[in-house]
Amino acid sequence: MKNKGILTVISGFSGAGKGTLMKRLLERYPEEYALSVSVTTRQPRQGEVDGASYFFITKERFQEMIAGDELIEYACYVDNYYGTPKEYVEKKLAEGKNVLLEIELQGAMKVKAARPDTVLLFVTPPDADTLRERLIGRGTETMEVIEKRLARAAQEALGMDSYDYLVVNDDLEECTENVHSILLSEHFRKERNADLIQHIKTDVQKFVKGA
Amino acid sequence: MKNKGILTVISGFSGAGKGTLMKRLLERYPEEYALSVSVTTRQPRQGEVDGASYFFITKERFQEMIAGDELIEYACYVDNYYGTPKEYVEKKLAEGKNVLLEIELQGAMKVKAARPDTVLLFVTPPDADTLRERLIGRGTETMEVIEKRLARAAQEALGMDSYDYLVVNDDLEECTENVHSILLSEHFRKERNADLIQHIKTDVQKFVKGA
Repeated sequence: MKNKGILTVISGFSGAGKGTLMKRLLERYPEEYALSVSVTTRQPRQGEVDGASYFFITKERFQEMIAGDELIEYACYVDNYYGTPKEYVEKKLAEGKNVLLEIELQGAMKVKAARPDTVLLFVTPPDADTLRERLIGRGTETMEVIEKRLARAAQEALGMDSYDYLVVNDDLEECTENVHSILLSEHFRKERNADLIQHIKTDVQKFVKGA
Repeated sequence: MKNKGILTVISGFSGAGKGTLMKRLLERYPEEYALSVSVTTRQPRQGEVDGASYFFITKERFQEMIAGDELIEYACYVDNYYGTPKEYVEKKLAEGKNVLLEIELQGAMKVKAARPDTVLLFVTPPDADTLRERLIGRGTETMEVIEKRLARAAQEALGMDSYDYLVVNDDLEECTENVHSILLSEHFRKERNADLIQHIKTDVQKFVKGA
């Protein structure tokens, strides 16, 4: 019943721990998950490796990918393009791996429209104060940046209803197991087992003829 | 996120192992599941204890329960009434337990119509031959009865599409874990977390005012 993988969008506030969660899922279940790596036309930042956080490509190549229908979704932020390449995702899904895609609300909606069998997960800290503490605790950003992120969280929260599942990330291990459990369960949904249902329906009909 | 229990309908072919599966779930997770016991107007069979497989009640009492809206669903087979009492189910759901209800397609549809948040599970053996072998292997029924059951399975199979999840019961322990995983995951569905979503939405708005 677990033939094909499930495309899984992970969204959530900055500071919700999406990256850590995805890393943990891949560590724990390397055979069952794969990470979708986006393409972007922006310049790599210090220390960014091509193919790790992003594939860095030219605007020409990006336009070509759009024209060739090679992207599941794409968007433009501050004059830079970001997109999800279709080929890698399809390959991993066919291998039976659930493909994790970290993306924001608008992208999530585009992916769901293109592929309605996508599972949309929204990851959130238990409450707003925890979110704030985590962003401050990182110690990597100025208070100005933190406040911008918090203001943005308020906006992102408005889209929470558009997701399939809401997962609270309080304890990382528990959250990882919960997400894994969600993906495992999704494999049993009626819609994902049309072939098996058809097979059993046909198979049991032989008892009618024999009766 | 696991405040209220989930009403869970378990259907499937005779011989699919529904009873064993439910028993195993209750043994493994006694704090998380409760069994809904139906009321019936039929006479108890040899060895049947009131309150175990059924509550045995009079036709007058049953009519009273219908009139008083005390049943989630009810049906009449061969001049006997069978129904699911509402009060017990509500009590257990409020305690946070998932309530298991073994019932057939028509009853399942009635329950889902009355309570759209019900989860419908269909349990099936991996294939028709396994189903046949299991029914024969029991050694408790004549071949005539077995053939009637198999012919009935062919009819029941037509309703499989109406369920939310399809679970193959090949290995009991694995099947038990899969069903448990499905119920655990259902608790994270957006529709079951409207209060939490509303709380977080409101909570993070304070960062907008503060910005």
